[in-house]
Amino acid sequence: MDLPAYCDDLGKRARAAARTLATVASERKNHWLMESAAALVKRSEEILNANARDLALATEYGLNQSQIDRLRLTPDRIQATAQGVREIASLPDPVGKVLDTSIRPNGLVVQKVGVPLGVIFFIYESRPNVTVDAAALCVKSGNAILLRGGKEAIHSNTAIHKILQDCLLAAELPADAVQLVNPDREIVGHLLKLDRWIDLVIPRGGESLIRRVAAEATMPVLKHYKGNCHVYVDRAADLGMAERILVNSKCQRPGVCNAAESLLVHEEVAPAFLPRAAVALRARGVELRGCSRTRDFVSDVLPASDADFAAEFLDLIISIKVVEGIEEAIAHIARYGSGHTETIVTGDESAARRFTTAVDSSAVLVNASTRFNDGFELGLGAEIGISTDKIHARGPCGLQELCTYKYIVRGDGQIRE
Amino acid sequence: MDLPAYCDDLGKRARAAARTLATVASERKNHWLMESAAALVKRSEEILNANARDLALATEYGLNQSQIDRLRLTPDRIQATAQGVREIASLPDPVGKVLDTSIRPNGLVVQKVGVPLGVIFFIYESRPNVTVDAAALCVKSGNAILLRGGKEAIHSNTAIHKILQDCLLAAELPADAVQLVNPDREIVGHLLKLDRWIDLVIPRGGESLIRRVAAEATMPVLKHYKGNCHVYVDRAADLGMAERILVNSKCQRPGVCNAAESLLVHEEVAPAFLPRAAVALRARGVELRGCSRTRDFVSDVLPASDADFAAEFLDLIISIKVVEGIEEAIAHIARYGSGHTETIVTGDESAARRFTTAVDSSAVLVNASTRFNDGFELGLGAEIGISTDKIHARGPCGLQELCTYKYIVRGDGQIRE
Repeated sequence: MDLPAYCDDLGKRARAAARTLATVASERKNHWLMESAAALVKRSEEILNANARDLALATEYGLNQSQIDRLRLTPDRIQATAQGVREIASLPDPVGKVLDTSIRPNGLVVQKVGVPLGVIFFIYESRPNVTVDAAALCVKSGNAILLRGGKEAIHSNTAIHKILQDCLLAAELPADAVQLVNPDREIVGHLLKLDRWIDLVIPRGGESLIRRVAAEATMPVLKHYKGNCHVYVDRAADLGMAERILVNSKCQRPGVCNAAESLLVHEEVAPAFLPRAAVALRARGVELRGCSRTRDFVSDVLPASDADFAAEFLDLIISIKVVEGIEEAIAHIARYGSGHTETIVTGDESAARRFTTAVDSSAVLVNASTRFNDGFELGLGAEIGISTDKIHARGPCGLQELCTYKYIVRGDGQIRE
Repeated sequence: MDLPAYCDDLGKRARAAARTLATVASERKNHWLMESAAALVKRSEEILNANARDLALATEYGLNQSQIDRLRLTPDRIQATAQGVREIASLPDPVGKVLDTSIRPNGLVVQKVGVPLGVIFFIYESRPNVTVDAAALCVKSGNAILLRGGKEAIHSNTAIHKILQDCLLAAELPADAVQLVNPDREIVGHLLKLDRWIDLVIPRGGESLIRRVAAEATMPVLKHYKGNCHVYVDRAADLGMAERILVNSKCQRPGVCNAAESLLVHEEVAPAFLPRAAVALRARGVELRGCSRTRDFVSDVLPASDADFAAEFLDLIISIKVVEGIEEAIAHIARYGSGHTETIVTGDESAARRFTTAVDSSAVLVNASTRFNDGFELGLGAEIGISTDKIHARGPCGLQELCTYKYIVRGDGQIRE
């Protein structure tokens, strides 16, 4: 295969599709979403057969049990994915939304209006339902998407892609709005240089993949590095509330990015809080790794290293540190945190204000679980990822964040003096 | 000099300064701006002496006459620069601005709040007054800035930087909020890898500089490639208005990015419009380069090449094409345009709507000069550049665009089920 020619063709066709899609009415996009949801369910057998082929190769590709579980599709999972697509259809269209209007002294009417980004290159790993989510979000927001899933899911992704493209054609939308990229590793490198055709790359996966993409891409990258999320229990915390929030943040779903990885406790409440927190966490199978002061209050705690404080465990492990006060907590988060999500438990309004002002993360919470940093929970709808970048979009990236804007300026002959 | 250590130290100090600056009250930032404006005027002689040293070396550095003119400071130019700083002081502070609020069904109060980006690395060329503008915009928006001007302006920039830092210290703000980077070329390469400390790089200068930065940087880049701006005269245009808008767009200040470089004329009005447009443009010294149909209507027009249609002349030259209709105009702009600014002259509302919807540029105007795509003219205040990117910010980048946001979420013990 002539890789540069293949990549250039993909990009060029995506660009042409994006130009058409940018001015398509909401109704037509929503029609495609509803028809796709129906077709995914109706043609489940095609998808499940393809998925079985991927699953048969999974051990050969060295996938572990939790990776195999993420790769696996079932009739229920397909139903749930289709339901997600219907929900995207029901969300407001961000394209054409007037974000701001002003009238200048010379009579010019200036409007800031939402428009699609154009072409999005999405690189992701094993879960094939992500193929559907990403395509649905991109088309609804008027963008063409290049989908580059892993080779371990290629049969599932190909079957899903076929259904989505059939529905694009039936809806008289450009089939190239959703293209599947050959999973050859070298192709990624070529595509990352095609800023002529691609407006944004979104890598979703391990940190090494994301770092490679950030280093090689000549177009902008929307990154999601990791979620090393903190729960800070302040001097003025209600300790019962603190325990509930800690347990929920750590244990409700430990494998996701907004799960807590580290607990910081004000020294004044550490003697009362740490023993009960340890009991509650250990009852749920959590391993504790603490600073020396933590170990004064709780027995059998492993010593926490610098690496533990920086880690995203994504597992039933938590690092713990006793701090002298809120400023030390803020400094600790600045040093070890990943800018994802942090929460303070406190009854002191001035402590809450200091924490929310000084902590520089995509979401900073007061008296609530870190698990709420999620597009649905914040009322933003489905998301393509949670950005730990500060540029363009931060936190959950949904339809709005897949758009940019332009200024539309209307006059009646104004010229500049 | 140990370059990596020098760069790491610069970045680390900028990061520390940014953390402090992020929570400083507006009054203190505005105080610094007003004091800096006063000090720049009061200490003009220091600046002018330093500028004289740069000017003495200018021919040695191979600067041409217009570059030397941009390098030159005068008491009037310093006064104007100081006035610009006072105007930035009067603009609203984007930090802490609540951009959105909602209350979730579970009682969580979700606020989207403006916060600084952090550390900005600004790379620019010869005009030393830009040093002041950029520092003022960054500090007002709570960001630390690394200023990397050209070696041809190093004495002027050093003198200005000294004054700004003295005022930072006097205002009890971190001096490292505004740092001047040694203009050694190798240093840029090192800094472009320090995504650990730098949140955004803004290169302002020639296309080759910007392409180099985009290719090498591991952090996001806010780019401004070029302004190949179009005036499209529609079938339904008022030809008198079209002539005024064309002349203003092309000639009012031909060396800037929002000046028109290309004229597209609907074939139905070409016989009536092109001869009068040619007279008006030639009266102002503009050279015409046209397609073959243009040359049927106007004598002595040079043939326009593909390169002419793609060019940003920044000079008294214009390319001209007769088009069959609005769709050909839109397609021509998609092919040759730079996504900066385009205007349609028309009395037909449906043509205006089609043009503003289908043309994908940072500003799309109707019956107004392209010269209005400017922060002040659109009512956005002073700008650090005009982005032709679509990510993060598009068009004029002022205080608001130097910020990101975070979600602040307040609860009373909410956990996720």
